[in-house]
Amino acid sequence: MKRTTRDIRLANRFDVLRHIIASRAVSRQEIVAETGLSLATVSTLVGELLDLGLLEEVGYEDSGGGRPRGLIAVATGGGVLVGVDVAETHVHVELFNPKLDVLAEARLQPGENRPEHLVRHIVSGVRTVLGEASARPADSGSAPQMPPGARVLGIGVSVPGRVERDGVVSIPAPGWDWRGVPLRRLLGEQLHLPLYLDNPLRASTAAELWSGAGRGREDVVVLTLGTGVGAGLALGGSLRAGEWGHTTLVLDGRPCHCGCRGCVEAYVGAPGIVQHLRELAPDSALLGAGGQTRTSIDALARAAADGDPVAAKVVAETARYLGVAVAGLVNLVHPQVVVLSGWVAAKLGPALLGEVRTVVERHAPRRPSARTGIVLCPIASNPVSLGAATFALEGFLAGIGHRL
Amino acid sequence: MKRTTRDIRLANRFDVLRHIIASRAVSRQEIVAETGLSLATVSTLVGELLDLGLLEEVGYEDSGGGRPRGLIAVATGGGVLVGVDVAETHVHVELFNPKLDVLAEARLQPGENRPEHLVRHIVSGVRTVLGEASARPADSGSAPQMPPGARVLGIGVSVPGRVERDGVVSIPAPGWDWRGVPLRRLLGEQLHLPLYLDNPLRASTAAELWSGAGRGREDVVVLTLGTGVGAGLALGGSLRAGEWGHTTLVLDGRPCHCGCRGCVEAYVGAPGIVQHLRELAPDSALLGAGGQTRTSIDALARAAADGDPVAAKVVAETARYLGVAVAGLVNLVHPQVVVLSGWVAAKLGPALLGEVRTVVERHAPRRPSARTGIVLCPIASNPVSLGAATFALEGFLAGIGHRL
Repeated sequence: MKRTTRDIRLANRFDVLRHIIASRAVSRQEIVAETGLSLATVSTLVGELLDLGLLEEVGYEDSGGGRPRGLIAVATGGGVLVGVDVAETHVHVELFNPKLDVLAEARLQPGENRPEHLVRHIVSGVRTVLGEASARPADSGSAPQMPPGARVLGIGVSVPGRVERDGVVSIPAPGWDWRGVPLRRLLGEQLHLPLYLDNPLRASTAAELWSGAGRGREDVVVLTLGTGVGAGLALGGSLRAGEWGHTTLVLDGRPCHCGCRGCVEAYVGAPGIVQHLRELAPDSALLGAGGQTRTSIDALARAAADGDPVAAKVVAETARYLGVAVAGLVNLVHPQVVVLSGWVAAKLGPALLGEVRTVVERHAPRRPSARTGIVLCPIASNPVSLGAATFALEGFLAGIGHRL
Repeated sequence: MKRTTRDIRLANRFDVLRHIIASRAVSRQEIVAETGLSLATVSTLVGELLDLGLLEEVGYEDSGGGRPRGLIAVATGGGVLVGVDVAETHVHVELFNPKLDVLAEARLQPGENRPEHLVRHIVSGVRTVLGEASARPADSGSAPQMPPGARVLGIGVSVPGRVERDGVVSIPAPGWDWRGVPLRRLLGEQLHLPLYLDNPLRASTAAELWSGAGRGREDVVVLTLGTGVGAGLALGGSLRAGEWGHTTLVLDGRPCHCGCRGCVEAYVGAPGIVQHLRELAPDSALLGAGGQTRTSIDALARAAADGDPVAAKVVAETARYLGVAVAGLVNLVHPQVVVLSGWVAAKLGPALLGEVRTVVERHAPRRPSARTGIVLCPIASNPVSLGAATFALEGFLAGIGHRL
């Protein structure tokens, strides 16, 4: 329960940098207006970040008669961040500047998930993006460049399991069976850079707070819809991952792979949606050649957009399941925004969104003054690797007091 | 998103006072050990509370060879707090000392819920407990006494509706139909004392944090089980009330009075439990003479304790519904403890608890290191009026910087 002024200063530092990242150039006075912090606090925090080279002065704006105001922007050459998304069948490594623009990426398919094997692929991906970005000639088009010799502020790695404080990871899922793998030590032996390990639910949520629909919000829920389903909750400044996918939606309903029945995931996870399609139309051409889940979801999304009635029915019923489950969350924690993220949301989200909103509205008690926005993830790149990189940025910002 | 060092100081003040309230007499060093705060911080906070007369020095303890350590305790004569629980059919007013012992109480049955009518009863109840406690002779037995002329630190009032920041209350429920009632103003015109209005879900949760199963915990969920069902969530220092009762438990299940189907409340609210009994045994003697809900729940609790098979079946199935719903909450926010509060928990809790724990255990993903305790509310008196009084105590503590 220990709280320190240090925590507050750090949270304020995050707020200030998030606002500057969101704008092309901004005055200290505008940051004051947007964050509610005092001008003295904003000036101190901006000063620290200028000293560290994360921000730069980029000119002046007329303040309508008064003294011209200095404008601040993120120094895109102030260093680089690496974000790594370790998923079941791939490793996605991205390089970012401090404005969180993607500079380079590497996609690897390790083929198997033994720890040493995966560590080799992660290390290789990190070296690729660091090398590639600095090797690329400065005139290779409009993609942002990594400045030669740029310092690496940190590496964030998202892994789909439980990460202990000491960087030991357990992933009890089939295809993994990791028990107490010292991932931080294994990576640290090869990458001599600050490392931040976390999970994809928290990473996706951090990505929304820094660069997405959660920016400037206090209470945000991010639902990751994929093969599995989970929630990240940012409530009043604290971030937590929740096994929302195993909330019971239909008592004694469909069996779920977790051993229980009627879980949210059994209905709105990708395999659940495809099962629904199969039950409704066992011979549907949408079920794809090999009956593969991803192919079927792709086909379903296209068919729904084309007005196919079976696809429309599956989408409407999935939206109802999802809407009822989202309503439970909304009524419980009253977030300002719920973000639908993950690959299923990317494919089916546009078709699902309207009906999900309607169902949530119907299940909300009478609180007209406290509406929750429900939106699709607005981040164009991979939110998990972006979120992992923001953990590295947060770690760098947390070290400021020690380093200066 | 504005955070201040003032917020931290206040949260630390709460922590320190909670620890002192929990003990008969404690040294500053023990508070340091329990809160993780520095000795300097603890000494400053204790000093402030001593100056205000909320604490007193009560002697010394031997520190094993070193200098004897001063012992601190709550000054039970340091002032009084009033807590008011305004419920559908009664008003319960209690008077507390700063250690949160009950000094006096008044129970009123206003008969109807028009604002002016209810305000008269609240005011009358407050005057009764203040007058009665000071009028009672000092030798009237073992009940703690209100010191003559004790100052009233504040009055907390819990009302079953939505309280806006300016003390305007809306209760859209049948039998109320309050829309924008300026309750703070109406009460303030007659009670010239600091007033704190809030709702019973948050009050029950605050009561657990100050004097119950939530003391010293960071993440606490309090479920109020009564005619209605709701949750109070204390997560990382922020307190919120959630309409958990209208989470869908059984898609397309029983109709709920809210207009939806399959809500948690339709199964574990008192009328839902009695409905279950009636469906199972329409002629059961447990259904009481007038078929009244409270009488039937009482009879059910007694019969379950006596091993009646019908009662046992209703209890077991209610425990399953409740357990599945609690599991969803536990998996989502991973609280350290879930407290079952409210009159239905008081009656049926002992019979329900074991099975609820078993069901939650069965629905929990594999997180052996993060077990959530599930307990019955340990507070012997009314947790709602107690919680309302703690809001007044918190308000008094929040004013310290201004007042000194």
